[in-house]
Amino acid sequence: MNGAESLVRTLVGAGVEMCFTNPGTSEMHFVAALDRVDGMRPVLFLFEGGATGAADGYARMTDKPASTLLHLGPGLANGLANLHNARRARSPIVNIVGEHATYHRAFDAPLTSDIEALAWTVSGWVRTSGSAAAVAADAAEAVAAARTAPGVVSTLILPANTAWTEGKGPAPALALPDRTTVTDEALREAAAALRSGEPAVLFLGDHALRERGLRLANRIAGATGARLIAQVSNARMARGQGRVPIERLPYPVDQALATLAGTRHLVIVGTTPPVAFFAYPGKPSALQPDDCVVQILARPEDDQLDALERLAELLGAPVEAPSHLGGRRPAVPTAGPLDADSVGLALGALLPEDAIVCDESITTGRNFFAATRDAPPHDWLQLSGGSIGLGIPMATGAALACPGRKVVNLQADGSAAYTAQALWTQAREKLDVVTLIWSNRAYAILRHELAGVGANPGRKAIDMLTLDDPPIDWVSLARGFGVEAFRVETLPAFVEGLREGFARSGPLLIEVAL
Amino acid sequence: MNGAESLVRTLVGAGVEMCFTNPGTSEMHFVAALDRVDGMRPVLFLFEGGATGAADGYARMTDKPASTLLHLGPGLANGLANLHNARRARSPIVNIVGEHATYHRAFDAPLTSDIEALAWTVSGWVRTSGSAAAVAADAAEAVAAARTAPGVVSTLILPANTAWTEGKGPAPALALPDRTTVTDEALREAAAALRSGEPAVLFLGDHALRERGLRLANRIAGATGARLIAQVSNARMARGQGRVPIERLPYPVDQALATLAGTRHLVIVGTTPPVAFFAYPGKPSALQPDDCVVQILARPEDDQLDALERLAELLGAPVEAPSHLGGRRPAVPTAGPLDADSVGLALGALLPEDAIVCDESITTGRNFFAATRDAPPHDWLQLSGGSIGLGIPMATGAALACPGRKVVNLQADGSAAYTAQALWTQAREKLDVVTLIWSNRAYAILRHELAGVGANPGRKAIDMLTLDDPPIDWVSLARGFGVEAFRVETLPAFVEGLREGFARSGPLLIEVAL
Repeated sequence: MNGAESLVRTLVGAGVEMCFTNPGTSEMHFVAALDRVDGMRPVLFLFEGGATGAADGYARMTDKPASTLLHLGPGLANGLANLHNARRARSPIVNIVGEHATYHRAFDAPLTSDIEALAWTVSGWVRTSGSAAAVAADAAEAVAAARTAPGVVSTLILPANTAWTEGKGPAPALALPDRTTVTDEALREAAAALRSGEPAVLFLGDHALRERGLRLANRIAGATGARLIAQVSNARMARGQGRVPIERLPYPVDQALATLAGTRHLVIVGTTPPVAFFAYPGKPSALQPDDCVVQILARPEDDQLDALERLAELLGAPVEAPSHLGGRRPAVPTAGPLDADSVGLALGALLPEDAIVCDESITTGRNFFAATRDAPPHDWLQLSGGSIGLGIPMATGAALACPGRKVVNLQADGSAAYTAQALWTQAREKLDVVTLIWSNRAYAILRHELAGVGANPGRKAIDMLTLDDPPIDWVSLARGFGVEAFRVETLPAFVEGLREGFARSGPLLIEVAL
Repeated sequence: MNGAESLVRTLVGAGVEMCFTNPGTSEMHFVAALDRVDGMRPVLFLFEGGATGAADGYARMTDKPASTLLHLGPGLANGLANLHNARRARSPIVNIVGEHATYHRAFDAPLTSDIEALAWTVSGWVRTSGSAAAVAADAAEAVAAARTAPGVVSTLILPANTAWTEGKGPAPALALPDRTTVTDEALREAAAALRSGEPAVLFLGDHALRERGLRLANRIAGATGARLIAQVSNARMARGQGRVPIERLPYPVDQALATLAGTRHLVIVGTTPPVAFFAYPGKPSALQPDDCVVQILARPEDDQLDALERLAELLGAPVEAPSHLGGRRPAVPTAGPLDADSVGLALGALLPEDAIVCDESITTGRNFFAATRDAPPHDWLQLSGGSIGLGIPMATGAALACPGRKVVNLQADGSAAYTAQALWTQAREKLDVVTLIWSNRAYAILRHELAGVGANPGRKAIDMLTLDDPPIDWVSLARGFGVEAFRVETLPAFVEGLREGFARSGPLLIEVAL
């Protein structure tokens, strides 16, 4: 059994069931091994950013890693932007990156580059296998590193000769360490802050935003009067009827500052203190007030649910806290313009039960979150690292993770243009994804930012933020990649399109003129 | 004048006239400055790999750098694969990468990453500006570094506060060092090798493959009997009637070994010794015979033309050497199947004078080079670093560099899917590019490679190399990006399409069914 086969068998044995790939010559032994091993499903992408973004979406919905298979440094480079997002989402992923044979590197062949340097920018674990005999054990470590809380990107670099040379056979899966639990002292400090009678916020991320975390947080809020606020961008939130609604910290700095104004205690679970996405002249980077006391109760790697549960007990919080779990979803809008408001209402009215919403709406979607609060239960996945071009790949991975659930990709048009190739994989795998493209034909967010620069922007600057010359025809692009598509320009047509998309199965793209 | 404006003015003063961009928030002050400064043309791309590949094409055709404007680490990451190709082509490029304000980095905001680590993997010069006052001088250094022979990728990282703070005004362009000249001793050694009477090869790259370099090499070959061979993949070659024809070392290892078999002396100008693109079990990495003496006469950074001229003089080579400068171009093929052979003949018959051929044909195009030998004078640009997805962007940059010349992009379909977004820029800028997509709906090169692995490939492996489910509709994709397109399935239709594409102006894509 060569090194490549021992690698695939080790991955499968450690619970890695998917391989999202765009392979090249140096990965051919791995590809050939896929045929000899059951239990690993290869999924082909036309571009590596699709594969890595899909691995992120898959990890968010399964809490376990997919593998990716990438072609040397440039293949990894093409996947880096979405690995950056995955790192920020703390998604476990196991990258397998092909490399030249160990003895070939010294010849500096054209595709040679510093793969480890690239990998470290997004990975918590990186290793280049030194021999075929070492590959299986390296792979077992890579999976264990990826799965150790809070979840990281692992990158195993596989020189071609370690793939083709006889290896030692598969290695057993490694035991995973338990999450660390927070100390009683930290719990007492948090309880004291929340009971102080001064304005307090429980600031949540990661698993605290899953259904059980939110219920526990809601008990604490009910017992103490603390506000619940989620960080700006979240890997996955449990939402909809029966779930505890929670506001998110707004993206614009002034709104974020206003949201946290007056807060004297910030108790953090599953994330880090709130910071501005970008710096602006004369505005702070840290978003809590200067006189606010910040306490990190549970880091992302800690057992956040245990911390919340023990805190609720310590506070004597009643098990059933007051909440707004039974709001009514909005009615289907029937009249008026097709705009962000009416689109939000239509989504709130029609979103199917158990949907997975992948939200890369950027400016268009700032009200969609509130408008869908009382839709049936669903999960909401956001652009975690700010690197646009995640939506279509993430939706692809979420659909691969959860057959039978409808995936709804709320997608800004400028961002969609980065990685639209993943539509082809949706068609190839017949995935149940409805992509809604907000076609405003601009980098709308940058128009706000440019206005904030203060100068009166001139023609050249405005041109750089405008996508209407020529307009991108999303229906034509989607069909080019094998996905059915149509364009809607009125609210009734949008509502009818949504109904159709949610009723049928298989991929569909709707270009929404805004 | 803020740091951003001092940067733009410094770039313009140093001869940088183009900015290929996909900007974000942190680059808004640079974008705003473009309106206040004449002489810098901004060109927008939907994806950073388009911008960097265009900068490579532009540099190959002008021998000077364009700037790129990229958004933090992920923006640079998206451009890295084509910067890798640019590095291998020794193309001068000045990347400007926006970064968080210096004081904001410590907060680890979502878009924070190690930009310098990414940049060093492709750059010969990297600096993060420390203050607005330093930006202009840093930019002058960045341009000088890029333009110093043999040409490198420079990356200047621009923290947002160094852009928006008052700076010192533009910095003057720096003087560039002369290319180093080779020693008389090196010339005598090369002359002795070539005169030895033993089989000798003059192995050429870089500027030795421009028109004058080839004429000089041809004089040397005529005087000594040495064979002229170009490296496998070249940044730019002068070709066609009146130019000295030269064979390239074949890509397949066995063919390359056969080509160099028996060679006792390898004299190298403008490149490095020949190596296999990939390693294979039981095959060598170095491609010259074991008993061959290798001499690097002129490195890429040396004055290659001076070395060739002095060598020709030393050898007493007549100024007019025998050659095949007057071959007849093939007749237009009129009958038979549409395949790689007939396509090559049609290209040879119809390629317009002064065309710029961007060749990312991969397997399909292996005979196109020979078939176009006697076409009118043209330049031939190849995939230099092996990272696929260069063709469409490189053609875009070549067209921006050379208005009035027809750019012909010979484009494999699998590779085209990486960076097809650059078609939108071709439409936006009304560039004179004909893109010929070889639609074989497979990663054909990998089928050869997989066969070489030895195993009988099974269904899963073959699936990973096959792009026909669903087929990519290139006509639909091109129209989606605003480029006119049609598909041809017969030889007469291909010939008619070529005639039309070469006669009209503006971008056109022809999907060629192979």
